[in-house]
Amino acid sequence: MGRIIVVVVDGMGDRPIDGKTPLQYANTPNIDLLCREGITGQMNTITPGIVPGSDTGHLAIFGYDPYKTYPGRGVFEALGAGIKLEEGDVAFRCNLATVDEKLNVVDRRAGRIKDGKKIVEEIDGMEINGVEIILKSTTEHRCSLVLRGENLSNKISDVDPHSETKIWKSKALENTHEARRTADIINKLVEESYKILKDHPINKEREKEGKLPANILLPRGAGKYVEIESIKEKWGFKASCIAGGALYKGVARYLGASIIDVRGATGRLDTNLHAKVDAALKSAEQYEYTFLHIKGCDNASHDGDFRAKAEMISRIDEEVVSKLIDFDGYVLITADHSTPVFVKRHTSDPVPILFHGEDVRRDSVELFDEISVVHGGLGTLRGIDLMPIVSDYIGYYKMYGS
Amino acid sequence: MGRIIVVVVDGMGDRPIDGKTPLQYANTPNIDLLCREGITGQMNTITPGIVPGSDTGHLAIFGYDPYKTYPGRGVFEALGAGIKLEEGDVAFRCNLATVDEKLNVVDRRAGRIKDGKKIVEEIDGMEINGVEIILKSTTEHRCSLVLRGENLSNKISDVDPHSETKIWKSKALENTHEARRTADIINKLVEESYKILKDHPINKEREKEGKLPANILLPRGAGKYVEIESIKEKWGFKASCIAGGALYKGVARYLGASIIDVRGATGRLDTNLHAKVDAALKSAEQYEYTFLHIKGCDNASHDGDFRAKAEMISRIDEEVVSKLIDFDGYVLITADHSTPVFVKRHTSDPVPILFHGEDVRRDSVELFDEISVVHGGLGTLRGIDLMPIVSDYIGYYKMYGS
Repeated sequence: MGRIIVVVVDGMGDRPIDGKTPLQYANTPNIDLLCREGITGQMNTITPGIVPGSDTGHLAIFGYDPYKTYPGRGVFEALGAGIKLEEGDVAFRCNLATVDEKLNVVDRRAGRIKDGKKIVEEIDGMEINGVEIILKSTTEHRCSLVLRGENLSNKISDVDPHSETKIWKSKALENTHEARRTADIINKLVEESYKILKDHPINKEREKEGKLPANILLPRGAGKYVEIESIKEKWGFKASCIAGGALYKGVARYLGASIIDVRGATGRLDTNLHAKVDAALKSAEQYEYTFLHIKGCDNASHDGDFRAKAEMISRIDEEVVSKLIDFDGYVLITADHSTPVFVKRHTSDPVPILFHGEDVRRDSVELFDEISVVHGGLGTLRGIDLMPIVSDYIGYYKMYGS
Repeated sequence: MGRIIVVVVDGMGDRPIDGKTPLQYANTPNIDLLCREGITGQMNTITPGIVPGSDTGHLAIFGYDPYKTYPGRGVFEALGAGIKLEEGDVAFRCNLATVDEKLNVVDRRAGRIKDGKKIVEEIDGMEINGVEIILKSTTEHRCSLVLRGENLSNKISDVDPHSETKIWKSKALENTHEARRTADIINKLVEESYKILKDHPINKEREKEGKLPANILLPRGAGKYVEIESIKEKWGFKASCIAGGALYKGVARYLGASIIDVRGATGRLDTNLHAKVDAALKSAEQYEYTFLHIKGCDNASHDGDFRAKAEMISRIDEEVVSKLIDFDGYVLITADHSTPVFVKRHTSDPVPILFHGEDVRRDSVELFDEISVVHGGLGTLRGIDLMPIVSDYIGYYKMYGS
């Protein structure tokens, strides 16, 4: 049986500026070496024209139809934060934020508060209408919120107004008792959070220091946890995940992959790429499928920074791909979506794919970039096509018929 | 937000004769300029191998799944003829025709009668079994027929035998009261039309002049009107339609697009292309999405006239596309289906697509034709993929996930 390391360079796909995309502009001798020896193509992670979310894009890459298996973002964030979810839990992304006494949002990030952990302790463990509230601080103002109890639904709207305006009331998005009940609990929790937090000693201290108080919870992105067939059950092999960002760990954990924590893997441009690729090579001794997520390019794209994106790609070439050249297995390099620096958001432009291994067909493509791979032997795939191809090569193939 | 002009050259796709398709043979310096600066691909408007109708092909291009949203041809013809339809109306295409006393068709077009308007007045407004009959003459022998009343169905067969033989009885195509009732009403109406028209003074006059009488109605293509999500509701932006033919206006009206009437837009080879492109450029100041339909190539194809088709393409290049080169927005050029001049009917051969705009990825394709675009960066799309791609570029994107 074979082994594969799948490198997902988040947001790598782009559009040209002055005739070149960041991937065309970057210095990528190692990637291009693999390209000459491998097969390429392009991929619409969801379907043509549909902009992939970070969560749905990864579901597809792992071979799960995102339209059938997407539980909602909050579930991945909670799993990524290390919360052990139970069937029926409803999970949210949640910000600690600053509001005025009329509940107008002053800052959705509470001045990027650093000491969120102490604040959330006041709320974690509460009970509202018989439902347990689990609240865990992750980074800065970010938390993961979970409701645990009977008859809950994720078909409810956000409280976070996504801009500096009055907070929204959560509303049922379907006409069910469960949805109305869950929206009601969330609204009570938000109200309660303001009562508890506005006079919290940490906030009093912050105000004295001229900092914004973290005086309310703003939940968004409700998801409902249901158990799903693991990668091992669905595809037959053991998978691991190396990633800085909690979301990607959350998706991998949802699918039963092992999470390998790497010191210095930050999910930012300053991430320790050497440590990540070393961990991936080590993982490949034990796991047939090693997923290596590198976030930096997406951050640079959202900032509209062409040069930083191209430099990150050059670093990935030098620090990561150079070490994969002698790897005795398959290597796949792709992105989860495009994030053109000109647009500063995810777009639906297809992403390039490069697949390398001793017995892989070589196509005529010599440079790995969005334009050249159009002529690649893999053609234009969809995200969910990738895993069946990979699993066939590593020997865990799906035959239909006999 | 961006703006786009979508040019659909009806039936442009073809197969080679003596090594060249009409598009390859035509003189297209302006189209090829956009091609070098843009991205190309090919499109199966419905699905590979399925021959698109003029109606379903356009539904797909507007981003509506034709298998889920097709109401039947008659609906589009009625809307294109300016009839205001109500929920539940059943609409037909309908010819004024000539039959003998045994109801054998002598001429399906009643000698291409020019004075159809006076004839239909005798029938328009009748009532049969409590159902109102609306009949409107459009061009020559062509009419639009609408049944308005309770419990009607479009699941009935045509009366028009599509050849010079005895007229058909309309039959229920499903085992429902509504279908049997509607077929019955249609058969009564056809019988009644013969009784009323055979001795009509206009027909007596025509016979004296040696012309064929328009002595019967031959309905076909039943469709049932149901309200559908408009383009604005579904995609978020305002759309307009510039077209000569009633059908295309009908499809656009069905989807809530604004119809821009242009003097001299005939839907034939003699159409005023200058006026149409000027109207499109003006429309783009107000509408995010301007649809510009040019019919002539399809007419030449149905006539099997290679030279006329190639000349029409050259004219489109010179008179339309030349004016789009400096347009400050996106331009998309494609066809709704292929109509090879050798075959003289729609075929399922994919059609070429060209997409141009400042930030669009450029592929390596330099000539816009059926053969070259196979190497294009858009790959091979389906008709319904087009609208999501367009809407992402003009800023009204659909994200799945978060």
